[in-house]
Amino acid sequence: MEVNPRVKKAEYAVRGRVVARAQEIEEELKRGSSTRKFDKIIYCNIGNPHALGQKPVTFIRQVLAACVCPSLMDAGILPTDVVVRAKEYLAGTGGSGVGAYTETAGLAVVRRQVAEFMERRDGVKADAKRIILTNGASDAIRRVIQLILHDDVSMDGGVERGHERQGIMIPCPQYPLYSCQIVLSGGSIVYYESDEAREWGVTRAELERSFLEATGSGVVVKALVVINPGNPTGAVLSESDIEEIVRFAEERKLVILADEVYQENVYVEGKKFESFKKVVAKLQSKALLFSFHSTSKGLLGECGIRAGYVEAVNVPDDVFKELIKLSASQLSSNTLGQIACGLMCSPPRQGDTSFDLYHRETQDIFESLKRRAAKLSRKMQSIHGFSFPSPIQGAMYAFPSIKLPAKAVEEAEKRKMAPDEFYCMELLENTGIVCVPGSGFGQRKDTYHFRTTILPPESDIDNLTYLLADFHTNWTQQFQH
Amino acid sequence: MEVNPRVKKAEYAVRGRVVARAQEIEEELKRGSSTRKFDKIIYCNIGNPHALGQKPVTFIRQVLAACVCPSLMDAGILPTDVVVRAKEYLAGTGGSGVGAYTETAGLAVVRRQVAEFMERRDGVKADAKRIILTNGASDAIRRVIQLILHDDVSMDGGVERGHERQGIMIPCPQYPLYSCQIVLSGGSIVYYESDEAREWGVTRAELERSFLEATGSGVVVKALVVINPGNPTGAVLSESDIEEIVRFAEERKLVILADEVYQENVYVEGKKFESFKKVVAKLQSKALLFSFHSTSKGLLGECGIRAGYVEAVNVPDDVFKELIKLSASQLSSNTLGQIACGLMCSPPRQGDTSFDLYHRETQDIFESLKRRAAKLSRKMQSIHGFSFPSPIQGAMYAFPSIKLPAKAVEEAEKRKMAPDEFYCMELLENTGIVCVPGSGFGQRKDTYHFRTTILPPESDIDNLTYLLADFHTNWTQQFQH
Repeated sequence: MEVNPRVKKAEYAVRGRVVARAQEIEEELKRGSSTRKFDKIIYCNIGNPHALGQKPVTFIRQVLAACVCPSLMDAGILPTDVVVRAKEYLAGTGGSGVGAYTETAGLAVVRRQVAEFMERRDGVKADAKRIILTNGASDAIRRVIQLILHDDVSMDGGVERGHERQGIMIPCPQYPLYSCQIVLSGGSIVYYESDEAREWGVTRAELERSFLEATGSGVVVKALVVINPGNPTGAVLSESDIEEIVRFAEERKLVILADEVYQENVYVEGKKFESFKKVVAKLQSKALLFSFHSTSKGLLGECGIRAGYVEAVNVPDDVFKELIKLSASQLSSNTLGQIACGLMCSPPRQGDTSFDLYHRETQDIFESLKRRAAKLSRKMQSIHGFSFPSPIQGAMYAFPSIKLPAKAVEEAEKRKMAPDEFYCMELLENTGIVCVPGSGFGQRKDTYHFRTTILPPESDIDNLTYLLADFHTNWTQQFQH
Repeated sequence: MEVNPRVKKAEYAVRGRVVARAQEIEEELKRGSSTRKFDKIIYCNIGNPHALGQKPVTFIRQVLAACVCPSLMDAGILPTDVVVRAKEYLAGTGGSGVGAYTETAGLAVVRRQVAEFMERRDGVKADAKRIILTNGASDAIRRVIQLILHDDVSMDGGVERGHERQGIMIPCPQYPLYSCQIVLSGGSIVYYESDEAREWGVTRAELERSFLEATGSGVVVKALVVINPGNPTGAVLSESDIEEIVRFAEERKLVILADEVYQENVYVEGKKFESFKKVVAKLQSKALLFSFHSTSKGLLGECGIRAGYVEAVNVPDDVFKELIKLSASQLSSNTLGQIACGLMCSPPRQGDTSFDLYHRETQDIFESLKRRAAKLSRKMQSIHGFSFPSPIQGAMYAFPSIKLPAKAVEEAEKRKMAPDEFYCMELLENTGIVCVPGSGFGQRKDTYHFRTTILPPESDIDNLTYLLADFHTNWTQQFQH
């Protein structure tokens, strides 16, 4: 069978060849047939907090359990506010419970809570009717890219466009879901560079260069992706940075896709998350904006529930309707995930039975993430051969630049791998640590990086960085002579 | 913003214009501003059992609650076998719990249970490594169609194909997810007709006609969809029907997509579900097969959890790897849904604490569905102006053919609607009943149908069919003179 060549071409490095190899080694370790120096795989490839020991937040899980099995509410073992909240959601299903499809956009009660959350955050009106609840932000991003991009000249209003292609501007480095979905839609990836030397900042000049170069080569640029806080860079944009980007998008008539799934994950003094929505409103911009959020990151780390949402701002009715239609064929996102999304957006309030516990648990998670980000930053800066100019500001990753000997680069070419993929593969074989090569995210030519999460338990960070430093020294040594 | 024209062109009638209008009327009813003869909307547009009063099965919900909130297992209120099962699944997450992404294909413990279920069903070996757990069967179907179809001449190995397009054969009538996804992938819909007069059967001659006509007009047919039991027809294929289809697919080198989500929903004497997998094995066929199943239908009716799976049979390694890669960018399907899938495939066994209750609950649901199917069939056959030659054999729908006066057809054309869409819209405005027009599924030229589910509570079926008969008589009368 001949596979869709776009599927063949698409890549998603976060679960790429290095991870596939890690799973093989894990099997080998389980069988006890390994003679390696390590006895477990340390998955640092993906922001999957619970897989690395982060505990779920009690309130969230209690409400979900009550919704899934309402008879538990009669057993007298759940806090009062948990029961109240579960009943509110069950009423929101019209009495059908969590086993029914909801309307396509998701439960109205949850969308209202999401809208109120954004209103409190931004001081700007939010419309529950412009929110769609999805199976994680990834699902929302996939749909929006499918809505925007096409490469079907025969259907394009009858106008033959020759070799013209549509494209989307994405940061370099970026989260590879974007490059993957653009390729699947037959579009062109148009990179704009974040400058590592200046805290991964983006300038208007660089946005213009990227846009004009793409346009000059026949690409119709339709949209611009921004990830804030950045993945993999962790960089947190200032309000003025965002203003610059919004103005640029409006002038160039680009739809903005704002990936804000790490909005709660800002760790350093003097940095604060500002939403694109707020800035668009402040500037009274007419730029079309789709913004994305998720329960998977932040402080809950509820990845497995697959919950997220997209808000559409300044998007005309007829376009939004098409997005709903595109979503409708998948009926609705999972109902428990929808409820988790509502809980993230409307946590217990002061005075509620669960408030203290919720506050303590989420605060502990935040402080621990903050300590890990700081510690990993310090350690990365001290490793010989790593360059890590600015500490991790936000998100859940470190993206150090690594120096690779010319002979290692040659060897990688022989093996038909990107040099940093070769590096990550060898790191895995020697230490059990799974990182993602920088080439999977995009990086400036002749630079090499890898991404690691900050998520291993605090007690393991010393060991992790020791292993990284030790591997780097010994492995690069082989290629020095 | 210019929307992807494929998205504009795609339609999904199950949640189309009639449903959108129903939601408006529902708002109107809630506001109390209605002067209509009815006071509620009866959603018969979609197989959503819990929305029409079907109760969840206790065992399923107890295990899910224990998985989502493991501390409940210490409260002494859950049956022993529920606790055992929950612990088994939690161990299967490697201790991460349900809050972590799983591997792309889903939890190995669940895939093993799915494989064992199919082995018991078919008496044929099933490989857990060829199963992917997904957010409902819809998600799996979407991915497989994206894997197979493309319309990107520029990438097609450099060979310009002119106006050639790829297509997939789907039954007429079909479930509109298929037509929708084919259009989104830029492919051609190639209908083959089910013959209403012969219990919606399909002949080899009709398959050949469809294939040759498409090929003759420049379509490269790549796959064949079969829905068994049928949606919307309810028809249950015999083993020899399936053999015929498998032979045809193998000879014509078509990939088979077997939608088997209604495999537990067979109601009439003398009909039995047989899987494509079993027949492919029996014939030692080399035909590539993707088969789909779901927790949303059957006896559980767990639609809101969004759980399903695809099994790939005879699919080469490299092709299966591409399907995994395509799935990987969405990370994994929701973990609770995966567990629900495992529970569906491995229900309590005789001797387990929950066995009796599980057996009674599921049996009650089955018997009730069977009674509703029989009753609705009888009633449909008695309505003047309806043609309903054979009783509902399986699935969850009736798809009667309706006679429409020529003037009603003219009026529909004036309103730019398909005649049966106009009919369904008027049915809604006058009775509150939401059905799906036959034109959304495909039907023989100059015939008109609608689909209703069999799901309203048994006590409501008399009223439902009374309203249908009454509306049909009065409404068609207007167009008689």
